[in-house]
Amino acid sequence: RALVEIDCGDGRGGVDPNGDLFVQIGTALGDRLEGVLTHAGHSYACRDVECIRQVAEQERSTAVSAAERLRSAGLTCETVSVGSTPTMRHAESLAGVTEMRPGVYMFGDLFQAEIQSCTREDIAVTVLASVIGRRIDENRILLDSGALALSKDRSTGVTSRDAGYGLVLDIDGRAAFGECVIDRVSQEHGIAISDVSLPFDELGVGVKVRVAPNHSCLTAAAYDRYYVVDGGREVVDTFDRVNGW
Amino acid sequence: RALVEIDCGDGRGGVDPNGDLFVQIGTALGDRLEGVLTHAGHSYACRDVECIRQVAEQERSTAVSAAERLRSAGLTCETVSVGSTPTMRHAESLAGVTEMRPGVYMFGDLFQAEIQSCTREDIAVTVLASVIGRRIDENRILLDSGALALSKDRSTGVTSRDAGYGLVLDIDGRAAFGECVIDRVSQEHGIAISDVSLPFDELGVGVKVRVAPNHSCLTAAAYDRYYVVDGGREVVDTFDRVNGW
Repeated sequence: RALVEIDCGDGRGGVDPNGDLFVQIGTALGDRLEGVLTHAGHSYACRDVECIRQVAEQERSTAVSAAERLRSAGLTCETVSVGSTPTMRHAESLAGVTEMRPGVYMFGDLFQAEIQSCTREDIAVTVLASVIGRRIDENRILLDSGALALSKDRSTGVTSRDAGYGLVLDIDGRAAFGECVIDRVSQEHGIAISDVSLPFDELGVGVKVRVAPNHSCLTAAAYDRYYVVDGGREVVDTFDRVNGW
Repeated sequence: RALVEIDCGDGRGGVDPNGDLFVQIGTALGDRLEGVLTHAGHSYACRDVECIRQVAEQERSTAVSAAERLRSAGLTCETVSVGSTPTMRHAESLAGVTEMRPGVYMFGDLFQAEIQSCTREDIAVTVLASVIGRRIDENRILLDSGALALSKDRSTGVTSRDAGYGLVLDIDGRAAFGECVIDRVSQEHGIAISDVSLPFDELGVGVKVRVAPNHSCLTAAAYDRYYVVDGGREVVDTFDRVNGW
């Protein structure tokens, strides 16, 4: 069973739902045709909720119209699948849609907070890091979380609140150090700076902090498991990841 | 046994080799003092060989002077460790140095080629990718290599030959498609464009290509093994990686 991918405006993959090829593929699939699939990745270019709502409606209407086109050609189209986290969050109607495939919504991240898919307080995945150096006169700390631990995703670089390579929180996940961001990374190191004077008495070498990521999908993919906490510091469970291809 | 890290100008980690703290740490280590270590990461900001040579000499002289300072204080300093791939490649003298720790030099990458640590033809690690979509009228292909497969490292973005998220080569590692670069990535997808008309008759869906990375260290870290070829297409060995912390 197969879905035919259509392009609803993102310009990444999928065929033109108004072109001849689309119906030809559906016809060629015959009994294997399950439905249509699209992904409104262009919702990530939005900077306000109204824009996301418009993209969500474009995604929905394109997918539903494409499904109708297959049905009008005498083909079955059981699945009408759409998906992106911003459109999932802000769609006003999902009429005709049978499946949604948002990904990052389950964790959120700094970029999703900037485009109002969640708040910073909602972010449910962080990287546990240790202070490994301090430059008190320069108001910065060195962490053992660099490009490997965080990824080089710089999603927030295009938003009004650029969080560098990640936002440094205290061990309990609180924004206790001001707008404290990872300003520079190398493979294993991250240099964090802040818009307030850092409390160096609380940030000795070896102290653990948490770093909220720009993009949870890419950061989480660097690890083979999640250590689950439930409001405290105790690890209450371990979830394995499925990585690789 | 421990090395004392000193800062030779990179401003990332390490103590000031001319400050009091440096000798205090060496003294406190006592019998555990093995030597000094530094890393001239600022060599990556160079854009020509003369600049790299100057940074290499700064790295060497800072480390050797720091070692002498420990010895003058009656301490032993057996190891004088320096390292960065550009300075390894272009250092004119390593007098007094006992160890060099270059990393990416063993593979090279597009960024190292731009700063003359290697040539593009020297790059010894590539990502095997498949064509999964084509937009012939837009002269672009879609590959199954995106941010996960390549990393979001954009090192070449500051050089004169910006290779996007990677340079697309043919299955034999040849630059057969012009300056064909991954212009845009999402988690699993990469869109490749070129400065020449792409040979779509050779680039059908399913065709395999190779992508040279911006930064081998970060790209290679996404995988748990290397498939080794030796001038041909046959895999002659598999090397496991050590990942994680």
